[in-house]
Amino acid sequence: MSIHAVKRSQCHLAWDNSIPPVLHIQSGETVTFDCLDASNGQITPDSTDAHISSLVFAQLDQVNGPIFVAGAAPGDTLQIDVLRVEPAHWGWTACIPGFGLLTDEFPDPALKIWALDTDTMEAYFDEAKKVRIPLRPFAGEMGVAPGKQGVFSTIPPYATGGNIDTKHLSEGATLFLPIEVEGALFSIGKSVVRPRFVHGLDLTWTGTAIETPMKVTVRLSVRKDRPYTKTPHFSTPKVSASAAAEDSYYCTTGIDTDMREATRAAVRNMIVFLGAEHGMGRVDAYMLCSVAGDLRLHEVVDMPNYVVGMMIPRSVLGPPATEVQ
Amino acid sequence: MSIHAVKRSQCHLAWDNSIPPVLHIQSGETVTFDCLDASNGQITPDSTDAHISSLVFAQLDQVNGPIFVAGAAPGDTLQIDVLRVEPAHWGWTACIPGFGLLTDEFPDPALKIWALDTDTMEAYFDEAKKVRIPLRPFAGEMGVAPGKQGVFSTIPPYATGGNIDTKHLSEGATLFLPIEVEGALFSIGKSVVRPRFVHGLDLTWTGTAIETPMKVTVRLSVRKDRPYTKTPHFSTPKVSASAAAEDSYYCTTGIDTDMREATRAAVRNMIVFLGAEHGMGRVDAYMLCSVAGDLRLHEVVDMPNYVVGMMIPRSVLGPPATEVQ
Repeated sequence: MSIHAVKRSQCHLAWDNSIPPVLHIQSGETVTFDCLDASNGQITPDSTDAHISSLVFAQLDQVNGPIFVAGAAPGDTLQIDVLRVEPAHWGWTACIPGFGLLTDEFPDPALKIWALDTDTMEAYFDEAKKVRIPLRPFAGEMGVAPGKQGVFSTIPPYATGGNIDTKHLSEGATLFLPIEVEGALFSIGKSVVRPRFVHGLDLTWTGTAIETPMKVTVRLSVRKDRPYTKTPHFSTPKVSASAAAEDSYYCTTGIDTDMREATRAAVRNMIVFLGAEHGMGRVDAYMLCSVAGDLRLHEVVDMPNYVVGMMIPRSVLGPPATEVQ
Repeated sequence: MSIHAVKRSQCHLAWDNSIPPVLHIQSGETVTFDCLDASNGQITPDSTDAHISSLVFAQLDQVNGPIFVAGAAPGDTLQIDVLRVEPAHWGWTACIPGFGLLTDEFPDPALKIWALDTDTMEAYFDEAKKVRIPLRPFAGEMGVAPGKQGVFSTIPPYATGGNIDTKHLSEGATLFLPIEVEGALFSIGKSVVRPRFVHGLDLTWTGTAIETPMKVTVRLSVRKDRPYTKTPHFSTPKVSASAAAEDSYYCTTGIDTDMREATRAAVRNMIVFLGAEHGMGRVDAYMLCSVAGDLRLHEVVDMPNYVVGMMIPRSVLGPPATEVQ
């Protein structure tokens, strides 16, 4: 399917524009990444509760890459089309002491190993109780190298992407990231599975979903016509072609150390987008966001940065201004 | 349809257990409320931008009632089945100076009057641009009188309900509220319309959706078998019978002056519910919430209280423990 491949071993543990690329590609080419789970292989299908206590945190949340895309320059936008996401046949979920929303009330380590049915894309939580979950796999981390020199943890999300960790970036989604260095230097990782519900699960609040090794195929294209992309933007696929109500969305994000400022930035970025692509006046765009837009907390645990998304259903917007005469 | 009716004029501007009931009913009976919009009739279809500047804030967010339900005692739960929600043929959205997320960037008052098509349940935001919104009407405020003596504003939400303001409480939903006084003393108001999208719009962040007068019919029943209902819980209808993925949800809420504590309480309340109704162990319930539950910010602008919801799709849970042998 893909003309380029990146191996499990071709990964790094920080965002850093001095890390040499593992691959050079042309704009518009596809790459398949073979990614380990977010424990970087420390958890296996045979692991037990005891293994949670001995996790080496410095080895977590690796990303595979980076990829140098010819022609990409600072100020351009990298378009990432998520073409295929293939999880392994197993995954894990854990209570990690000291980590998560109710950690004080759940002090003991616990590990659950799941069997994932990748044909039906379902998994049983408890077969006797008929507690079964439909699955939606995605890559939690997609990012490009920062323009700033230095070593930046893969844990927080940034304006250049990284740990955005939203289920909306599943197969069929398109992500746009602002490029800050020559070649963009794109990397991907943190393959997880979340339930395939229409409503749910924007918010990471315990630290573990169903973590799993995964193969991910993306097409990387350089865009020169989106100077307004200052933070991650993305476009989601329809959840199902048959269900008319399950809409496709366009999302602008705000990323900030202050949750309220991140929220304000997400709305401000959508107002700019609606002006640029749909010819909408500022007050009109603000009122439309108020009525038809949805603010989502995508990421609130990986400090110091919050990611808030402003999502608008595409069906509401009508065609872009360039198509209306 | 209903054997009892409450008029527009039968409303009050605060939660206060000394307000005499406008109606006494038996448990299981239905009531139709004729509610004005949240401006309490100050905005009409003929209003202009200038009317926004002269809004009397002390008259906003009235609720209709209260209703005394025979047999309701402190410690019981009031079950509210939302049977029918009928908006008027018009509504309004506003930029109100000093109010909303980007108020500093939108200093001028602005008012938009909408024509609501109540047959198709749609409204045009901009007909020329084909920007059209599918509608979902609901009552933003449903609550019972507090046990504590005194006058409490209808603006913040409380453990006894009030301004929960979530679109999930539309036609077909069921709300459960903890009763703190004899007769429960239920009131309802703040009729609004939000887009009928599957994903969106849990979060109130500008203060106005599409505000409209509305008739709402509910069935009120006293439940003695839900001692674990300490905050609002609710159950949502399937969005559409034909779309299998559009699931029905069960939601527990946490209400607190601290957003993090409200979030923790919402999860804790779901763990208690999963134990009581589905026979699930505490650690199992916590991990299931982590993987399949969705945290939503229902209300973040009406201080001092935040409302956070923990939502679980009913299809995941399987039948309640009492039905499994």
